[in-house]
Amino acid sequence: MTVLILTCEEDVTADMVVVHLNAAGVPVVRLDPADLTGGVALSGEYVRGGFRGHLWSAGRLLSMDGLRSVWVRRPGVPATRVAEPSEWLTEESSQALYGMLRSTGARWMNHPDAAVRARHKPWQLRVAQQCGLPVPATLITTFPQAAREFADRFPDLVVKPVSGAHPQEPPRAVPTSRVAPDADFSAVAFGPTLLQRRVAKRADVRLTVVGDRLLAARKEVSPDADPADIDVRFASPAMPWTPVDVPPRTAEGVLAYLRTAELAYGAFDFAEDADGTWWFLECNQSGQFGFVEVETGQPIARTIADWLSTPAPAETEGTDSTVSPP
Amino acid sequence: MTVLILTCEEDVTADMVVVHLNAAGVPVVRLDPADLTGGVALSGEYVRGGFRGHLWSAGRLLSMDGLRSVWVRRPGVPATRVAEPSEWLTEESSQALYGMLRSTGARWMNHPDAAVRARHKPWQLRVAQQCGLPVPATLITTFPQAAREFADRFPDLVVKPVSGAHPQEPPRAVPTSRVAPDADFSAVAFGPTLLQRRVAKRADVRLTVVGDRLLAARKEVSPDADPADIDVRFASPAMPWTPVDVPPRTAEGVLAYLRTAELAYGAFDFAEDADGTWWFLECNQSGQFGFVEVETGQPIARTIADWLSTPAPAETEGTDSTVSPP
Repeated sequence: MTVLILTCEEDVTADMVVVHLNAAGVPVVRLDPADLTGGVALSGEYVRGGFRGHLWSAGRLLSMDGLRSVWVRRPGVPATRVAEPSEWLTEESSQALYGMLRSTGARWMNHPDAAVRARHKPWQLRVAQQCGLPVPATLITTFPQAAREFADRFPDLVVKPVSGAHPQEPPRAVPTSRVAPDADFSAVAFGPTLLQRRVAKRADVRLTVVGDRLLAARKEVSPDADPADIDVRFASPAMPWTPVDVPPRTAEGVLAYLRTAELAYGAFDFAEDADGTWWFLECNQSGQFGFVEVETGQPIARTIADWLSTPAPAETEGTDSTVSPP
Repeated sequence: MTVLILTCEEDVTADMVVVHLNAAGVPVVRLDPADLTGGVALSGEYVRGGFRGHLWSAGRLLSMDGLRSVWVRRPGVPATRVAEPSEWLTEESSQALYGMLRSTGARWMNHPDAAVRARHKPWQLRVAQQCGLPVPATLITTFPQAAREFADRFPDLVVKPVSGAHPQEPPRAVPTSRVAPDADFSAVAFGPTLLQRRVAKRADVRLTVVGDRLLAARKEVSPDADPADIDVRFASPAMPWTPVDVPPRTAEGVLAYLRTAELAYGAFDFAEDADGTWWFLECNQSGQFGFVEVETGQPIARTIADWLSTPAPAETEGTDSTVSPP
């Protein structure tokens, strides 16, 4: 049974996983949907109540029957590397490829539907709450007056984007910033604004979850850190990431989160406060893990390779169940 | 409890449903996400494990607690009617609005996740097969040789787009066409092509499903129809749509389809052959129903109004269940 990896050529993180799959003798096909319909071809047939499909890439033919899992890593936009790309060809190719893959019994890391849903930040906050994870008080609003009242109740606030990355090419992360005590909130009326109580953190925590395996790393806030530097992505690399145990209630919470979100992989960011509480900030369903593995030596790539090459448990999991015969 | 309708101003089909909701005294808020952040404002607060949210439109304040259902009809792209629209503002506004609505317990017609998935034609074919609906033999391929072999096995074929509507503004439907017996399939290599056995039909069937209510209409093929006119959307209006009973096995199949697809509304298109078999062509989760109601007198709008104003059954249905506490 073959593992299919959808990603772009320059994805070195995928290489880390491929090494383990190769070492275990697991067949792997790696392709970039951008190479449709040049280097990648496909065919799927719905005849007499059944489905048979094939993918062809770099001289290899892959039967959809023989597909164990699909890892959606960093795929390119379908059919954008052809001589005359067009929106229409991209849409046709996307539907043909992903539609065919949806017709298989393969397990997904992560299923495209779950991935799309998981990007909704407000939904993340609600799911985290419902799964018992502590969430800092948060307001998303276009009412300046609501922002002002929130700032009265929670004087120490940060502001961040509702949606995450800025949709330019390449996408740019928008840093989380501290709100000045005398902030003027009138511009809130022109665009939804996310305000969140600032967690006075003593460490950042990155918890990578692969199936039901938890791998957590912790990075202490440097004693000489500038209090204005909120966002770990832009912080000084002075302090290292080190492995850390996951508190049992947090472990329960994140596993419930991934079940609810129908995700096989999630990279959770927490802020650890002075009491040792881990405050949920976000769960990135496609979060990078290479930097954590390199700094901590935690076997994340191998754990992903294991998950991808293992048959799904008897009880079908995730969104696969929605395409099972009723 | 209020019904929220997301649609554009010029949507007269929504008007048909609003009439029934008004007559029944059900509170309705209708808004177009394109009017964020001008005529529409929002605020949502995640504090102490709970969520409270409000929407404001045309002078009315709607609490998310009081939301019975959301009807996603023909909503505009969020925040595109502001003075300076941008991709970034659209993304932020979209996440803020739909993220907040996802945090409520409202029932959806249809849930955005289910709606996105339901547009995948190859997935539709597979679900229809698995739900026991007859599907004409279909091939989706980029291999000219596979197309030729398919044409040998099924000499009478039609070709249609894999994805449906052409993504121009406004979207244009691409007609289904008959494949000539001596067709040259070499261009298949440049873009995925969907070939399907032509059903020699004596009638088109439009089956509109609202929750578990089935409303079917039938339009006989005119005796003097040109055999090249395959596509009912472009056919002569000579023959009228008339109400028709749904065969029990088809009824079972479409209800299973909607359960699998987690849809509350679906407009199924079938081709009825000389034996009276209804062949599944597609299920449009946002299919128009106004023309059927006008021609047949079937109470589709009233049935939708009933569904929207009724509490969800005790057992949570659809994708709502994924945001319930685990």
